[in-house]
Amino acid sequence: MNTTRRARPWNFSAGPAALPEAVLHEAAADMLDWHGSGLGVMEMSHRGREFGSIRDAAEADLRELMSLPPEFKLLFMQGGGLAENAIVPMNLMARSDTRTADFVVTGTWSEKSCHEAARYGRANLAASSQDRGFRGLVPPVQWRLSDRPSYVHVCTNETIHGVEYGELPDLRGLGCDAPLVADISSHIASRALDWSRIGLAFAGAQKNIGPAGLTLVIVREDLLGHALPVCPSAFDYRTVAESGSMYNTPPTWGIYVAGLVFRWLLQQTHGGLRGLAAVEARNIEKAALLYDAIDRSSYYSNPVDAGARSRMNVPFFLADPAREGDFLEAARANGLLQLKGHKALGGLRASIYNAMPLDGVKALVDFMHDFETRHA
Amino acid sequence: MNTTRRARPWNFSAGPAALPEAVLHEAAADMLDWHGSGLGVMEMSHRGREFGSIRDAAEADLRELMSLPPEFKLLFMQGGGLAENAIVPMNLMARSDTRTADFVVTGTWSEKSCHEAARYGRANLAASSQDRGFRGLVPPVQWRLSDRPSYVHVCTNETIHGVEYGELPDLRGLGCDAPLVADISSHIASRALDWSRIGLAFAGAQKNIGPAGLTLVIVREDLLGHALPVCPSAFDYRTVAESGSMYNTPPTWGIYVAGLVFRWLLQQTHGGLRGLAAVEARNIEKAALLYDAIDRSSYYSNPVDAGARSRMNVPFFLADPAREGDFLEAARANGLLQLKGHKALGGLRASIYNAMPLDGVKALVDFMHDFETRHA
Repeated sequence: MNTTRRARPWNFSAGPAALPEAVLHEAAADMLDWHGSGLGVMEMSHRGREFGSIRDAAEADLRELMSLPPEFKLLFMQGGGLAENAIVPMNLMARSDTRTADFVVTGTWSEKSCHEAARYGRANLAASSQDRGFRGLVPPVQWRLSDRPSYVHVCTNETIHGVEYGELPDLRGLGCDAPLVADISSHIASRALDWSRIGLAFAGAQKNIGPAGLTLVIVREDLLGHALPVCPSAFDYRTVAESGSMYNTPPTWGIYVAGLVFRWLLQQTHGGLRGLAAVEARNIEKAALLYDAIDRSSYYSNPVDAGARSRMNVPFFLADPAREGDFLEAARANGLLQLKGHKALGGLRASIYNAMPLDGVKALVDFMHDFETRHA
Repeated sequence: MNTTRRARPWNFSAGPAALPEAVLHEAAADMLDWHGSGLGVMEMSHRGREFGSIRDAAEADLRELMSLPPEFKLLFMQGGGLAENAIVPMNLMARSDTRTADFVVTGTWSEKSCHEAARYGRANLAASSQDRGFRGLVPPVQWRLSDRPSYVHVCTNETIHGVEYGELPDLRGLGCDAPLVADISSHIASRALDWSRIGLAFAGAQKNIGPAGLTLVIVREDLLGHALPVCPSAFDYRTVAESGSMYNTPPTWGIYVAGLVFRWLLQQTHGGLRGLAAVEARNIEKAALLYDAIDRSSYYSNPVDAGARSRMNVPFFLADPAREGDFLEAARANGLLQLKGHKALGGLRASIYNAMPLDGVKALVDFMHDFETRHA
């Protein structure tokens, strides 16, 4: 085996997922006493000056990292992506008197979003790649958008099927002035986003930015104030925005850890690049290494269209599926963890989020080559 | 000053609140590698065997600690108590064709619950102590319950006003067979509860059991399955129960820390007592010490009826309110933190949850005596 070994294994979990080691060290060191306050972060009143400074720094750092324009509000919420599937339509469905939202379904997550929204209005299936087994995207020119929809929903990175938008759709270019809602849960802060094309983006934190239980919502100001009467106060974006995410007690620990991750991301360098540009360049390199290894081999395969492959989540299959158990066992023995595919798709999956170093992907590729040599 | 001093200050925050130091030490030690798994708890798939064992142990320990009968389901959710104000009626309002829930308002929290429920049906104000400034309870015989309500809501410990039910109301004894819904956020696991009188209890974790972002819902099985169509799937108690709180990604870190707290509580001893009995005995002792100090003084006052005083949250006032700033500043200098009262009530407040040792209350009482001597 030429796989690089180290004390801590490489963690390819799709989420909750690996966090930067530097972040974990800092969180551990501050556990009983954050910056001389005498309090651990979990023990601070969310309304005190200590936590206020943590919250404010997290927001400022994420805004800088993602080049977020000032007309967007950043909300720290709870419930995860699945709850947002209801919270988004509860907040936006009444924007247009059509009470119709358009959905582009490219995998399990956008499918769930479409299904859930039907509780709050009409959910129009504008396009779907289901007939192709969710192996790619549907070109926007083929979308059948409805007349004056309340919003148009896409999942810009499908964690299970490994399908990612390389470029956000330009709704105005399609003659539609509705806001684009983007579920960016599994690739937030992994690449630059064109905010001029987005009305609202949301993300569960547990893939790229922090612990489960924190949900980020990034919403353009003009979309606030349309909540349905059945929308719980705690999930009314206007209420949350006006209170600085303090209407109810926010998930303070999650905000703290995400803040450490944002600062870590800002400090990343790669070649001559810094911050998100460096992070994105490294993600491109990691993904290329893994997809190349898969494509060069006749033992491994990834079924996704070349232009739609996710940089974050790489599902792959063995030529001999009966060997999957052996693969996972041998991988674990070699310090490569959580490579089992989602049950909806089967096979294997490597999630290589921001916190996964290039060395981790190299270790996986080396192991895959070795396994193939022994078993193909 | 005869106040006992120590390296780490005493933290009287109403929530998020102090956690047991032993729990913080363990969480810090396991941060990068939980029990030799090579993973930190925040990095584990919620569906993996490692986190599964954490979740299962947390549930088993809480069931043992609180003597929870098997017909109750324990749900690990998100959103906090405020979101539950909507989630409870979304799940229970349709239980009775009256679509009416009865509310007993004894402070800010039950008042918010009553207000929010009106989005989902009729909220009947069965009783209120507002005319007495929320200084006590309303005897159940005076409640004007509606005919066949869907449920009856009480907040069994009002965190802001410092009012606590010593005994749960017996609805059947009042001729009402509706389930009692109890918001037990700020005294969960601080005292024994008579589960035969409860249909559903919920609690945000950030007072007595863990970090903000985790909500516990304890619901009798027969109350599942009544969710309104507008209830988000992620908040449908039946869906959450049937999936073992894994329908969406649960707040894994919060469940882990709460599990450490549950084990710590089970291990507590006091006199010849163990577990919750020991914890409750110590809470009685702590509260008696503080209320006695207040009552013996003419400088401090607590306005709550003797039989309704909270063991957890003790609001108090100075004879000279202009000295509150001095009090807080001197307290901080003496290692006594977060004693400011809630803005809705003003004054001061000491929250003395499970994690506050008797020594912390002694230090506060000593400081209060000293401050009075200097300023009265």
